[in-house]
Amino acid sequence: MLKELENKLHSEIPMTKYMELKVKSIDEEKIITTIPLKPNINDKGTGFAGSLSTLVTISAWCSCFLEVKKLGYKKSMIAIIKSDTSYKAPVTKDMNCITTVPSKEQINILEKKLKEKGSASLRIKSQIIQDDQICVNFEGIYVIKV
Amino acid sequence: MLKELENKLHSEIPMTKYMELKVKSIDEEKIITTIPLKPNINDKGTGFAGSLSTLVTISAWCSCFLEVKKLGYKKSMIAIIKSDTSYKAPVTKDMNCITTVPSKEQINILEKKLKEKGSASLRIKSQIIQDDQICVNFEGIYVIKV
Repeated sequence: MLKELENKLHSEIPMTKYMELKVKSIDEEKIITTIPLKPNINDKGTGFAGSLSTLVTISAWCSCFLEVKKLGYKKSMIAIIKSDTSYKAPVTKDMNCITTVPSKEQINILEKKLKEKGSASLRIKSQIIQDDQICVNFEGIYVIKV
Repeated sequence: MLKELENKLHSEIPMTKYMELKVKSIDEEKIITTIPLKPNINDKGTGFAGSLSTLVTISAWCSCFLEVKKLGYKKSMIAIIKSDTSYKAPVTKDMNCITTVPSKEQINILEKKLKEKGSASLRIKSQIIQDDQICVNFEGIYVIKV
């Protein structure tokens, strides 16, 4: 699943390939994604805010995508509609992003709404962490249509 | 100034070069920046949210950068600390971003704070517009140190 998801991103969204985005691990609680500093550097020699923003945005999208796939839908349209991002500290090394997967309660509501209405939304959190310090806090709302 | 700013971005922030970001115009009210669809496309054939987010974030950064330069500071550190973004409609063509420049009142406060404390913050709005429709609404807070 890691390589499959990574290949999907790299082939369908060229910017993720340029950023060298990698899906490092997926478990029942979180998804870990990474990007190296070099293609994602800014004028200050730290992680570019655009790359940080892209990393959290696409990682939370992945969380929605995987959940919808688990529910058995082969085709879906998932798009972000709103996000709040706080940049708390500069990132000086390769960037690691931890994205929550939806809770059981969120999944139950998602399943019900997709069945009844063909659409639903999910609120997902992502964080970029370096040496146990939160550098970026992100929350996005995604709309899903099947 | 257009080419100078564009060259600065492309040479110091490689992602802006990959995105083919262009600074189209700068006047007393707004900055217009653009990116073409091709390198910034997503799985749905529309503008990738990561690219949209990057475009508004760096364009608002440019608005701060130009203002600080106008005040006579040759060196400065400008970083985003917070942003709210609403994605209202998909972008299906090359992307145009309109960024406000700070108001006279904002500039007066900025000038005073930089002189007295060496630091200040600015709140800047950017919008991505297609065929008179707002597709993305962004507001970012930037901290400036001189």
